[in-house]
Amino acid sequence: MDELEIDAVAEAELDDPVLVEGLPGVGHVGKLAGDHLLEELAGDSTLVRRLYSREFPPKVSVEDGVSELTCAEIHAVSVEDGRDLLVLTGDHQAQSNTGHYVLTDAILDIAEEFGASELFALGGVPTGELIEEYAVVGAVSDESMCEPFEEVGVEFREDEPAGGIVGVSGLLLGLGERRGFEAACLMGETSGYLVDPKSARAVLEVLEELLEFELDYESLDDRAEEMEEVVGKIQEMEQQQQQQQVPTDDDLRYIG
Amino acid sequence: MDELEIDAVAEAELDDPVLVEGLPGVGHVGKLAGDHLLEELAGDSTLVRRLYSREFPPKVSVEDGVSELTCAEIHAVSVEDGRDLLVLTGDHQAQSNTGHYVLTDAILDIAEEFGASELFALGGVPTGELIEEYAVVGAVSDESMCEPFEEVGVEFREDEPAGGIVGVSGLLLGLGERRGFEAACLMGETSGYLVDPKSARAVLEVLEELLEFELDYESLDDRAEEMEEVVGKIQEMEQQQQQQQVPTDDDLRYIG
Amino acid sequence: MDELEIDAVAEAELDDPVLVEGLPGVGHVGKLAGDHLLEELAGDSTLVRRLYSREFPPKVSVEDGVSELTCAEIHAVSVEDGRDLLVLTGDHQAQSNTGHYVLTDAILDIAEEFGASELFALGGVPTGELIEEYAVVGAVSDESMCEPFEEVGVEFREDEPAGGIVGVSGLLLGLGERRGFEAACLMGETSGYLVDPKSARAVLEVLEELLEFELDYESLDDRAEEMEEVVGKIQEMEQQQQQQQVPTDDDLRYIG
Amino acid sequence: MDELEIDAVAEAELDDPVLVEGLPGVGHVGKLAGDHLLEELAGDSTLVRRLYSREFPPKVSVEDGVSELTCAEIHAVSVEDGRDLLVLTGDHQAQSNTGHYVLTDAILDIAEEFGASELFALGGVPTGELIEEYAVVGAVSDESMCEPFEEVGVEFREDEPAGGIVGVSGLLLGLGERRGFEAACLMGETSGYLVDPKSARAVLEVLEELLEFELDYESLDDRAEEMEEVVGKIQEMEQQQQQQQVPTDDDLRYIG
Repeated sequence: MDELEIDAVAEAELDDPVLVEGLPGVGHVGKLAGDHLLEELAGDSTLVRRLYSREFPPKVSVEDGVSELTCAEIHAVSVEDGRDLLVLTGDHQAQSNTGHYVLTDAILDIAEEFGASELFALGGVPTGELIEEYAVVGAVSDESMCEPFEEVGVEFREDEPAGGIVGVSGLLLGLGERRGFEAACLMGETSGYLVDPKSARAVLEVLEELLEFELDYESLDDRAEEMEEVVGKIQEMEQQQQQQQVPTDDDLRYIG
Repeated sequence: MDELEIDAVAEAELDDPVLVEGLPGVGHVGKLAGDHLLEELAGDSTLVRRLYSREFPPKVSVEDGVSELTCAEIHAVSVEDGRDLLVLTGDHQAQSNTGHYVLTDAILDIAEEFGASELFALGGVPTGELIEEYAVVGAVSDESMCEPFEEVGVEFREDEPAGGIVGVSGLLLGLGERRGFEAACLMGETSGYLVDPKSARAVLEVLEELLEFELDYESLDDRAEEMEEVVGKIQEMEQQQQQQQVPTDDDLRYIG
Repeated sequence: MDELEIDAVAEAELDDPVLVEGLPGVGHVGKLAGDHLLEELAGDSTLVRRLYSREFPPKVSVEDGVSELTCAEIHAVSVEDGRDLLVLTGDHQAQSNTGHYVLTDAILDIAEEFGASELFALGGVPTGELIEEYAVVGAVSDESMCEPFEEVGVEFREDEPAGGIVGVSGLLLGLGERRGFEAACLMGETSGYLVDPKSARAVLEVLEELLEFELDYESLDDRAEEMEEVVGKIQEMEQQQQQQQVPTDDDLRYIG
Repeated sequence: MDELEIDAVAEAELDDPVLVEGLPGVGHVGKLAGDHLLEELAGDSTLVRRLYSREFPPKVSVEDGVSELTCAEIHAVSVEDGRDLLVLTGDHQAQSNTGHYVLTDAILDIAEEFGASELFALGGVPTGELIEEYAVVGAVSDESMCEPFEEVGVEFREDEPAGGIVGVSGLLLGLGERRGFEAACLMGETSGYLVDPKSARAVLEVLEELLEFELDYESLDDRAEEMEEVVGKIQEMEQQQQQQQVPTDDDLRYIG
């Protein structure tokens, strides 16, 4: 295995496509969004590239007994009445600091190969608490890009994301800008504690407006309901534990 | 020391051999199995290769005062009325993520050199608790391989192993598949807390059926008995500790 | 992204300049000092180089929604009646041991390119407690350099800094000396717990004397006042917590 | 800084010298021994090589205000009526797994350059408790080497050192053996908690017998006395703390 191995699985003709990145990160928002996008547009998409790398975790995933080596996948998506897309999905980011740089450069190479000059990195921005309303926070590689984003409700905040954007999403902006891309990151607010399908939906709704495609959200909403049940149970359990820890009069009488 | 150094210790003519990997992992199952296999078939085996690498821990092991640099060994085994084998054993896996890729590629190079196109990685799948019955869970590089395995009792489970297979065992499947091998991983159930000779035996019994050789298990069973004594003592000690922690009436009287 | 990428943003003619390094470290003293120096001498300075590297954290910082890839910057500063300067600033050190060596060599390359043969690394030396007086401790690459420093109040102490000087500051002395530079490190005493603008001021006052430029300190003093308010509040909170933990007669009566 | 930089500080003619390694490790035994050896034979020794490397910690040590880049030193020692020596000393081991391999190969290159074919790595073997008698445990690269060592009191134990020998000391045996050296490691028993001059003395006394030189031990004995005072004080403090933690009748009366 070289530092990088790129399998050309198939080819596709795309017209000025937009790269959309959906790798795991905060709240798994980017991954949920990218996976859902592909699911909904499966009829219009073709797997074109697989990236393998020494920089990925040294493992295989196993599904129904069949193994698959860690990789990232790029699908070419050609929607009617919408922008052509290159969708990047995967289960892992790189495992070292330099690895992130290596991987991001490879992704940009592939994007250039297909004629892309714009990209969206999708992710989450942690709020530290469970939330009801899901704003989408933005970051762009150049100031001139802000207006169309603000028009569809993306918020550019003074102090967020605190600490910047780490990993492939951040480097797609940083290295993308150096290589002539118009790069943006859309981050759905999320608690940061859980996988968050509602946050993924918020991000995809912005993307729909900007890239003119339409998605159905039924499966994401189903997942959101499952998550809410889980959250409910955790909160119940925590309350029970707290009640158990307060010493009652009976406990004290036993000691004294 | 280069990234890899392979010593050709001896040569051997093998007919369509199967690579069998027994490096340490969960419950040391793979290592116990690999070492036992070599012990039992010692009369039919020749040490052919030693692998040294910067990716191994920087240490020597010491036995009776004599040092030995960390390495992995490959033995050629030619059993009558059974498949020829290349058995990989060692005390350590690689020490870094990229190191696992480097090491696994080297192992596959050697396997190809001897004409192998099939491989078995041996390991354990942790159950999190002590068990009585030892199932063997399987993972294969291609779906078409499942049937003969199921026929000898290997179980292909929907959600196991959770988290996939990490390290050389996993990469033997992942990189092996890319290089044209038929690759399988046999994992004996094990608690994950202890070295588990019974799990190793379960795995070897499956291998016996698939590769048509016969093993004696006396020394493995002896080790299993030793382990059971150790487990028994640990359980006794834990019970005593628990009894000591419950405050008795006497303790309470002292405070009050 | 190569191991290093150096953008030549602009050129400048400097006469025997001195390299001044202000990267983050203990108490952020070096960074505060470097940033303040640039702020005050902005009228006389030009950004000449940006360093990007795989050895920097794989992230972008985001300010008002606009992203910027991690980098270090070098400004050429030409002050009237003072030594010409090359000022190195940035938000991060390298992320690995070998990375520090790589980065420091690159910085020295640029310094040589502009004709520098002297350098100052700025930092802090931790005292472990809040202090009132701010001494500046020194380290030099050659004994002959001590006198002029002592004359302006720099202290060379027998056992400080204990553990030496780690990171780019230390390597600027170590590698700088091997490459023919006269290298010195000025370290302001600081508690080590907080960002310390007073310590940065102490260091800059020494630099002013040695390099014959003049700085205004109003903005640094403002930051120092803010820090003192923060410290005051932390001390108040700690006192309150301590008072709460002492069991009162009332608490004891409740148990007994 | 390349991966390695070796400064040829001076040359020396040695006759079949023995490489003696004294880098820091368990109980700092090897370092104390190596430093003491050089101190005592200073009149007969010349600094011949300095090794710098990206694999060393990225720092300078500072003594009386003067900086020194992390390095290892090799002195050539020509004693009358004793074996010629190449003594390796330093303050640090390599900082990564692969770094140990790189560093050890460089040391062996220099040893070969000076015509050495035998080596001694000096270190400590931890007992886990303070001891009175200091045995010296041995490990050799080949079984045939044991006898002369046993004759001077070196012990070859069945299960020690458990876990083998890690770092440059271990690799000097492992890589040394592959490069045709007769390699041995002498390890003084030590608690593992403290710097141990008595253990260093025990190791040097064995070396004296094997290599036919004579050392004075006054300064090492002084250090041993200092250590014993420190140990005494720590033991006193621990006893006081224990006495304070036992609740007295008075304490209990207060609660009840």
